[in-house]
Amino acid sequence: MALLKTPYKGTRDHYPEELRIRKYIFAKWAQVCESFGFQEYSTPILEPLEIYAAKTGDEIVNEQTYSFEDRGGRKVVIRPEMTPSISRMVAARRQEMAYPARLYSIANFMRYEKMQRGRDREFWQLNADVFGDDSSFVEAEVIYMAEKILKSFGADESMFEIRINDRRLIDLVMHQYLELNDTESKAVVRLIDKINKLSAKDFELAVKDLFGKKRQDEVWSKLNSVINAKTFEEIPPEIVKSAEFQNVQELFKALASLGVGSAIFDITLMRGFDYYTGTVFEVFDLDPENNRAMFGGGRYDGLVGLFGVEPISAFGFAPGQLPMELFLESHKLLPRLLSEIEIGIALVEPEYVSQAFELAEKLRDEGHNVELDSRDVKLDKKFKTFEKKGIEKAIVFGEAEAKSGEYEIKNLGRSGR
Amino acid sequence: MALLKTPYKGTRDHYPEELRIRKYIFAKWAQVCESFGFQEYSTPILEPLEIYAAKTGDEIVNEQTYSFEDRGGRKVVIRPEMTPSISRMVAARRQEMAYPARLYSIANFMRYEKMQRGRDREFWQLNADVFGDDSSFVEAEVIYMAEKILKSFGADESMFEIRINDRRLIDLVMHQYLELNDTESKAVVRLIDKINKLSAKDFELAVKDLFGKKRQDEVWSKLNSVINAKTFEEIPPEIVKSAEFQNVQELFKALASLGVGSAIFDITLMRGFDYYTGTVFEVFDLDPENNRAMFGGGRYDGLVGLFGVEPISAFGFAPGQLPMELFLESHKLLPRLLSEIEIGIALVEPEYVSQAFELAEKLRDEGHNVELDSRDVKLDKKFKTFEKKGIEKAIVFGEAEAKSGEYEIKNLGRSGR
Repeated sequence: MALLKTPYKGTRDHYPEELRIRKYIFAKWAQVCESFGFQEYSTPILEPLEIYAAKTGDEIVNEQTYSFEDRGGRKVVIRPEMTPSISRMVAARRQEMAYPARLYSIANFMRYEKMQRGRDREFWQLNADVFGDDSSFVEAEVIYMAEKILKSFGADESMFEIRINDRRLIDLVMHQYLELNDTESKAVVRLIDKINKLSAKDFELAVKDLFGKKRQDEVWSKLNSVINAKTFEEIPPEIVKSAEFQNVQELFKALASLGVGSAIFDITLMRGFDYYTGTVFEVFDLDPENNRAMFGGGRYDGLVGLFGVEPISAFGFAPGQLPMELFLESHKLLPRLLSEIEIGIALVEPEYVSQAFELAEKLRDEGHNVELDSRDVKLDKKFKTFEKKGIEKAIVFGEAEAKSGEYEIKNLGRSGR
Repeated sequence: MALLKTPYKGTRDHYPEELRIRKYIFAKWAQVCESFGFQEYSTPILEPLEIYAAKTGDEIVNEQTYSFEDRGGRKVVIRPEMTPSISRMVAARRQEMAYPARLYSIANFMRYEKMQRGRDREFWQLNADVFGDDSSFVEAEVIYMAEKILKSFGADESMFEIRINDRRLIDLVMHQYLELNDTESKAVVRLIDKINKLSAKDFELAVKDLFGKKRQDEVWSKLNSVINAKTFEEIPPEIVKSAEFQNVQELFKALASLGVGSAIFDITLMRGFDYYTGTVFEVFDLDPENNRAMFGGGRYDGLVGLFGVEPISAFGFAPGQLPMELFLESHKLLPRLLSEIEIGIALVEPEYVSQAFELAEKLRDEGHNVELDSRDVKLDKKFKTFEKKGIEKAIVFGEAEAKSGEYEIKNLGRSGR
């Protein structure tokens, strides 16, 4: 009849030594964002269902949300992502806010997903977005910041790459270059999105399958020439002369001027969310063991306007904590993280507890984190406790220390993570 | 057809200037807790319903939870409080953990409550608990820490008091001194819990109403002598000689030895949760405009054992962010909080954007938070944006600055909160 000790399926308890890793990651995120003038905001864990129905992908809303009715009959959702919430917030103060608004948050989200490595049902994520500046320079600056976050952990450009594409360019390729209608275009985009999971032959067959005998060869050959273009020079000239392609080139010029070395153009990059309207990008882990998209972002100029105010441009990205932790682990970039507690005072004669407490307070006033172990147990038990907690310095406190006011700081040696 | 811009009922969006207050409070909480050797943990936002059904008050579970079934038919709850979750975590590592475990968390919770000042449906709370040390000294130390948190904000003992009682003493008074059975005892406790909301006469009538003609006068006169006792000396001698009362006195001795000046004994203090088993305390705001319990805590030795492991003692408290903010506001203890962004660079000649960016990066490397406004808009518009964001220093950057490498830091004056 005992209660279960396990957390809810797909979620985790974080004990101090585990939380330390998360706090390390969050602190770097916050520090880099703030150094670029991003200010932190926060939104409720629950949102009205309708704000996701509009633009988030169908799969997330229909199959992956934690949605329910509250006691007042309102349909609500535990937020599965931040973009609709921050768009709502910007809309609510559309007139008063200072633009460009550079905003970030570090928050938890829930999606009812199949369990897999690097993906929990509850997950923590940074969201960093700029509202009200649609220049290529700002896009480049934000992508530079994404790169700088990775570098702040000690990563270098051999470990990751940033793949960049543009939704407007994809539209142009689909509609003008390949002359597809909306339905065909969606189907092709969906296939390209899965291109890395299919063999070359299967991909070709799947594409051809979408079209009648008459068109399939022509569509395939044109599409093939596009998706195989690894450099700007290999892009078919009909596309190169378009304004959409000029945009992409301008972004790459800005990226080069900032020295973003990890950026590459990838016309097969699609990104899942329906709301992207321009540049999209994904940061890939290049570790062969962990080869996957770590996080991504892009331009979504249509979301704020859905809340009944004048639209405003938006560009941002959202790395998750767990994928980042896996990246840092696989590249051996996680440092040894010390316990927050610096000094343990082991009281050995109970009658001097007040004096031991006084010493603890004195050390706290000097800025130290101090645990006083006043239990009536043997000294080696106290030392064991300190060591388990990663406390590296100990003071044994008894009559001699109480009377002389002098004490020795004993080094318990390195432990902790 | 536009989406609503308002957050879900009873919750709040926090824009940067509002979040700054919350971050200020959280930072103090964390700093004081860590200085006492408390280590941070984190639990999932969703929990299985059953962990609350066991011991949390009925009202919370039946009327105030955000509970629902997940897509797999599991009954889950958005956590309404932390105590069952941290008890679960301790139970899960009952053998391995280092005791006394001093643990804290700062997290959000949800309760479906009537809207009122100082109470939102989503709220943030600190939880600080010690597991595995049931001495009076540790209780006093934790209460001292609660007091120190308030003092860390600049509060003094004229602004608050800490009321202390003991559940075991309440039981003794009800069962042995007043000779009530369980049902009667519960009813009387419930009335005492509301004593401040009733007139003296109404309270007397309500108590007498619970008993037949024969017993009502005797019960009332004995109860009255207990609840009117403002000092230890006024407590009836039958109670004073009990072990339960000795416990309370020992705690007060320990509190005195630590110099906790704001602690008073209050035999009418009951605390809502069913799980308390010993000392309970509440911190009251003494501001006549805001006279209310800010937060409380106590001993709950029975919760960990509910998870099928050997029980372990637990003592802690949980202040909420919003009540604390109201306290700080009403006592004028909130300082002017600066924007995170220190320096705004206003680019006035777009062709020098790379050089302006270089300067921004140089300043970032020196540890400053810097926003580069590279938009093609007038200078005064950029300054207005900086001021709205609370940025106090600005650098105007154009050809002269790019060529000379020299720049002037302009003071935009004090703004921000």
